[in-house]
Amino acid sequence: MSATDQKPTFRGIAAATGEPIEPAYPVSTLADVDAACAAADAAFDAYRATDAEARAAFLEAIGDEILALGDALIERAMLESGLPQARLTGERGRTVGQLKLFAGVVRAGHWREVRIDPAMPDRQPLPRADLRLRMIPLGPVAVFGASNFPLAFSTAGGDTASALAAGCPVVVKGHPAHPGTDAMVAEAIQRAVERCGMPAGTFGHVRGPGNELGEALVKDPRIAAVGFTGSRGGGLALMRLAQSRPVPIPVYAEMSSVNPVVLMPAALAARGKALGEGFVASLTMGSGQFCTNPGLVLAIEGEGIDAFEAAAAAALSGHTPQPMLTGGIRQAYAKGTEALAGHAAVRQIACGLAGDGVATEASRLFTTDARGFLGDPALGEEVFGASSLVVRCADLDEVKRVLRGLEGQLTATIQMDAADEAAAAELVPVLERRAGRVLVNGWPTGVEVAHAMVHGGPFPSTSDGRSTSVGSLAIDRFLRPVCYQDMPAAMLPPELRDGAEGPKLVDGVPA
Amino acid sequence: MSATDQKPTFRGIAAATGEPIEPAYPVSTLADVDAACAAADAAFDAYRATDAEARAAFLEAIGDEILALGDALIERAMLESGLPQARLTGERGRTVGQLKLFAGVVRAGHWREVRIDPAMPDRQPLPRADLRLRMIPLGPVAVFGASNFPLAFSTAGGDTASALAAGCPVVVKGHPAHPGTDAMVAEAIQRAVERCGMPAGTFGHVRGPGNELGEALVKDPRIAAVGFTGSRGGGLALMRLAQSRPVPIPVYAEMSSVNPVVLMPAALAARGKALGEGFVASLTMGSGQFCTNPGLVLAIEGEGIDAFEAAAAAALSGHTPQPMLTGGIRQAYAKGTEALAGHAAVRQIACGLAGDGVATEASRLFTTDARGFLGDPALGEEVFGASSLVVRCADLDEVKRVLRGLEGQLTATIQMDAADEAAAAELVPVLERRAGRVLVNGWPTGVEVAHAMVHGGPFPSTSDGRSTSVGSLAIDRFLRPVCYQDMPAAMLPPELRDGAEGPKLVDGVPA
Repeated sequence: MSATDQKPTFRGIAAATGEPIEPAYPVSTLADVDAACAAADAAFDAYRATDAEARAAFLEAIGDEILALGDALIERAMLESGLPQARLTGERGRTVGQLKLFAGVVRAGHWREVRIDPAMPDRQPLPRADLRLRMIPLGPVAVFGASNFPLAFSTAGGDTASALAAGCPVVVKGHPAHPGTDAMVAEAIQRAVERCGMPAGTFGHVRGPGNELGEALVKDPRIAAVGFTGSRGGGLALMRLAQSRPVPIPVYAEMSSVNPVVLMPAALAARGKALGEGFVASLTMGSGQFCTNPGLVLAIEGEGIDAFEAAAAAALSGHTPQPMLTGGIRQAYAKGTEALAGHAAVRQIACGLAGDGVATEASRLFTTDARGFLGDPALGEEVFGASSLVVRCADLDEVKRVLRGLEGQLTATIQMDAADEAAAAELVPVLERRAGRVLVNGWPTGVEVAHAMVHGGPFPSTSDGRSTSVGSLAIDRFLRPVCYQDMPAAMLPPELRDGAEGPKLVDGVPA
Repeated sequence: MSATDQKPTFRGIAAATGEPIEPAYPVSTLADVDAACAAADAAFDAYRATDAEARAAFLEAIGDEILALGDALIERAMLESGLPQARLTGERGRTVGQLKLFAGVVRAGHWREVRIDPAMPDRQPLPRADLRLRMIPLGPVAVFGASNFPLAFSTAGGDTASALAAGCPVVVKGHPAHPGTDAMVAEAIQRAVERCGMPAGTFGHVRGPGNELGEALVKDPRIAAVGFTGSRGGGLALMRLAQSRPVPIPVYAEMSSVNPVVLMPAALAARGKALGEGFVASLTMGSGQFCTNPGLVLAIEGEGIDAFEAAAAAALSGHTPQPMLTGGIRQAYAKGTEALAGHAAVRQIACGLAGDGVATEASRLFTTDARGFLGDPALGEEVFGASSLVVRCADLDEVKRVLRGLEGQLTATIQMDAADEAAAAELVPVLERRAGRVLVNGWPTGVEVAHAMVHGGPFPSTSDGRSTSVGSLAIDRFLRPVCYQDMPAAMLPPELRDGAEGPKLVDGVPA
């Protein structure tokens, strides 16, 4: 082996100990990025021409190959992420379920948006041509795995599943926080590609620390769109890069959100203690490392608010944290919570247990009032992890003022009882302008993979609030419409021919 | 009246003579932009809450008010644009028809994308919440009128109609090339707002020369999206501005396209002369001032190609041009065609008549071969007006090479006979990757307002190839999804309640 064949390598880091884990993985080169993009481009026309059944079976085969990895996958993901077994087993189920959902979406065909406006040769003053519309995939998609969901938002996660469902080849940049998990899943996808006879470049994969590979991927002229879940800084950098290309491309980045929860007066009065306990369970789940973690609580002063805070403080104080995902995330959490603790307008209500202190950080809960909150926009910024801020508001108008000043959010939640309904109804138009999902009497953590789910919201919760990264509507991100005018039947795409099955609008009417 | 009340004014310019036309119109100020955006923002919640029938009736009322302007509108538009009466009468019909189409779209309700995933309280291991999804409007939209369609792509054009249909208030920046037409239509819309009892800020309007007003409009934090039809330079400037905002917003800019037409061998052999005549009729219509003007012809060498060129040259040589829209457009055309005429790899085939020479420019037709074309990317750039370039290609492979090197296009056309079908079918995947509409045996000018139309294409033909600016799908540009989780029925939007009428997916299945 010559010296030029020896690539630098990197290793995963055990979240719980900070120690490197074997084996070492070779760091991809810029030539690898180029080769993956070239292969994806070469595969595009053949892959997008696959019929619905073949593409659906391919998605299901990816799920089967992931399941076939067995316990080894879960064990490796536990080691790298510090997440517990039950959570990762559930996340694997969700990942496989998501692939199955998109298999069903591909078969059902609504995503094709077939529209046929038949010719009107006798129309006056001018005849109308035969017009037929369908959606086609954008082209090869670059997907960036996320650290906090090593399975469901990573190598074979929602971005990959929806892009493949749309007919786009995918090039994944594996997250360097879980290279072993990433490698196992990438190989599983590759086996599904081969087993299903898909073109070789349908799935590509590069890995390594640092930003250079990802930047090269987003700048590659053959990449047509980007999916990303991660920090605001990372997402904004990708947006800038994508916009500065000679041909700009869409970036679907899911970034940051504090997910406001409004506690209405009757609910507080009736069940302040239960709300406090439920809130802390949602806040501390997975050490708070969820995009939909409830980082902001707006509580209307009155009966029950003290019970809420007391119950939350008691629950939090006894909470033993899990390790955080990476040292970088842990440091950012520590810095963010220290800033809150030292803020003149903020008071700490409770602090959880330290855990082992090597890889853990205590959960923390703070409080301020609406005036304090409105006085400093920084108080509305996300602290990724199990930290939250309770803002005491005098009344509903003050809640509205606080909400109107917030940035775009993934979710917004109302905790209410029947007596709150009239007031809560006033909040709905305010909340839906600021969030992609509005919940009543639930907690925002936990995102169902379903047809009616929206996991996306106005900037900066995502780069593009017109989209969702979870649920079947996520496929729309990777499609664009094409109209075929007076095209002979033999040249038309099969789904646009007369008599083709599948949902369609004919002259705007379902047929 | 104090000095500060006296705004600067500007006048329209008669396209045919270059002379100013009375009356003078006051130039809007930055305070006017601010006021229009404030009013639009204030109107947003009330306007988006209007029901389908009220909103549809409002769109129809705008059409009625435009028709009620009578001949005066056509006469003013003729004077300002230099376009002939028949064209503008047709364009008015199209504008009113477009408003009616969107009234029907609003009533039909597919745009709401209603999805309901009912609760599954008994699901194991976790229950599923009740999830309901609908589309909501983005917010106030800034619309920039286009010079080349003073009615159909201007003040009450497709962008305005589709944004209003979506539930977005609209602030129009009228095109300074037709301030009188713009004023009449803006007043008609305003009358419809009042007649239908819509909130006062549903429609706003500013006008003036220069870029300052438009820049202020796009930068205003209350503006949520932009519609634009015009030059590539203008569109790119708006894209940069929108991306550099603290909260970036989508820009739907329709910019430039050369609309390649491929002449297949059997078609050329069978009807080279007729193709030449049909081509020149499409090229010279409206002095070629269409986004879909056929600016590039790829002809496969063989029988008929000489007949095509000879017929095109003969038709073009006798063509008397209409005035061009503005002096600026005329100068850009003259510069672009002179560059082609002086290009070492290009030869002029024909030049039309000069017209009066004050406001007209002769139509011009050039030719080169594939090697010459591929040798200079500038030959693929749009010259707005009745100029086209015939590229002689040795065979289908050379056609594909040329097509693969092209930028994104609004349209691509195949002229073929039955004997060409196998070869033409090979072109479809190539063309659909580069264009939003693929036509067979037609000419790209003439864009039907229909459900299956796509008037949009990959960058730089538009800023966002995932969208269309013509046809009912254009409404999707101004919508985003929101999910309502476990929301009590009384708080749900009416269209999401149990038993509500309208198209929907329940668990992903039409119901």
